[in-house]
Amino acid sequence: MSHISDVIRHFRVVKGQDFQLKHFNPADTRGFKDRDAAAELLQEGVKKLAGLQDRLYADGRWSLLLIFQAMDAAGKDGTIKHVMSGVNPQGCQVFSFKSPSTEELSHDFLWRTNRCLPERGRIGIFNRSYYEEVLVVRVHPEYVTHQKMPEPLVTKHLWDQRYESINDLERHLSRNGTVVRKFFLNISKAEQKRRFLKRIDDPNHHWKFSSADTTEREYWADYMDAYQKMIRATASDCAPWYVVPADHKWFSRLVVAAAITETLESLDLKYPTLTKTQQQELQKARRILENGKKRQ
Amino acid sequence: MSHISDVIRHFRVVKGQDFQLKHFNPADTRGFKDRDAAAELLQEGVKKLAGLQDRLYADGRWSLLLIFQAMDAAGKDGTIKHVMSGVNPQGCQVFSFKSPSTEELSHDFLWRTNRCLPERGRIGIFNRSYYEEVLVVRVHPEYVTHQKMPEPLVTKHLWDQRYESINDLERHLSRNGTVVRKFFLNISKAEQKRRFLKRIDDPNHHWKFSSADTTEREYWADYMDAYQKMIRATASDCAPWYVVPADHKWFSRLVVAAAITETLESLDLKYPTLTKTQQQELQKARRILENGKKRQ
Repeated sequence: MSHISDVIRHFRVVKGQDFQLKHFNPADTRGFKDRDAAAELLQEGVKKLAGLQDRLYADGRWSLLLIFQAMDAAGKDGTIKHVMSGVNPQGCQVFSFKSPSTEELSHDFLWRTNRCLPERGRIGIFNRSYYEEVLVVRVHPEYVTHQKMPEPLVTKHLWDQRYESINDLERHLSRNGTVVRKFFLNISKAEQKRRFLKRIDDPNHHWKFSSADTTEREYWADYMDAYQKMIRATASDCAPWYVVPADHKWFSRLVVAAAITETLESLDLKYPTLTKTQQQELQKARRILENGKKRQ
Repeated sequence: MSHISDVIRHFRVVKGQDFQLKHFNPADTRGFKDRDAAAELLQEGVKKLAGLQDRLYADGRWSLLLIFQAMDAAGKDGTIKHVMSGVNPQGCQVFSFKSPSTEELSHDFLWRTNRCLPERGRIGIFNRSYYEEVLVVRVHPEYVTHQKMPEPLVTKHLWDQRYESINDLERHLSRNGTVVRKFFLNISKAEQKRRFLKRIDDPNHHWKFSSADTTEREYWADYMDAYQKMIRATASDCAPWYVVPADHKWFSRLVVAAAITETLESLDLKYPTLTKTQQQELQKARRILENGKKRQ
């Protein structure tokens, strides 16, 4: 399994300073030939994940926050579906963040996601997140005016301050038991076009297509710039970014599944063991149950 | 009004580094002789506050977070009641934080208060707050075990990390439009005893007394130490502490009212003015209403 561990390390960014998006090829598969070559590993990962999540839940101390960001059609929904499909839904909560509501805009930009942070013992998945505040809002800075910020506070430092708020939050979470992992599904512009056309051609996929999606394509370079700046400013040891090649869905799923299992394995999760008193109580309960049976 | 402004400045701490609680006398009244000498000023402050809050609400961009911390019987409830009594409740939300629930303990220590942060245009009041995490929990460190933190994260840095999380949060809030002001109602041990005895003697105040309160009195010195450390670590320009003398209720109310009005005045709040188009729409609405009248 050391090969897959190398694969993950290749896409993990913990120090963003010199990060350059152009060094990451969206079509990369790190030597895996095709879907079949990865199928067994993926299946193994999904199975392992179910077991790890069970222990996370039983331990009840750590929680895991997984953040997914990407351009449209990069495969966020599909990745979440395929990677997390083996996991007990009771221990896993997925939140999708769309355009903020009036109530949400009436608070600081971290408020709406803070409310949805995973409880101890759970996996929380953010399908889009507070990172939208330095992505779509940075590409369309006019959105800041909808956020009803007091005018004197909207300065040229706005983006740097948002990065800082995010880094502070993620450090706080890590120190208090929430492990944060962030995935940028890195799709190429050409592959996005191909997938959009497929959605238009297939009536079953029409619901997934909105003409607004093509408008955002025109800002592709701005978005890539915003992603690069975001990763430079917010990749850290406690909350790394994974720049996941997303032109091949099967490969991005493999990388995400492996990154999650590796993270959970590093926590060395164990089922809680009982104290002597608790064990005695357990034996007492057995006796009561067995005596009850005799009486019946 | 420059005198009252001096009074407030005297009790405001923005740089905690050298803060020493012993330099603040709980019985101080800064030359005000008695309740009557302060009555007019307090009434004036409460009235002014109502007007300022109305503009805060109309402007809808800033919010104000007021945090109250104190030993029992220091007068938190009474201060909130008397100072905020003139304010429209629609623009003001008070949250009292008692022992955390199981759900609250299942999250990081800022989660439960983060949910209650005031919306733009509102005043939010925290009667106790996340500061309990470095007060009662610091005095009784065994409470940390109830918080289900992963063991490797409970280190000797815990308190410093909590201070840092709090400072980061308050900086984030300030930058995003929430003005934070913190009040420590500084009562003496002797005055607390007097008020406890009064509660025991007066049947109408029995409900305010719990025998647990006297137990906490035994930790007085530990609490004072925790308050001093807290103020040293978390007083800042963007979120100052006011160390309010609380042995005389009338004086603590005066100081709190003055500090809040001064803060709101500094925001230079104005009723929003309409654009030319909006004014034309207003005139159009008038014409429609008046024509409607004729038709009736």
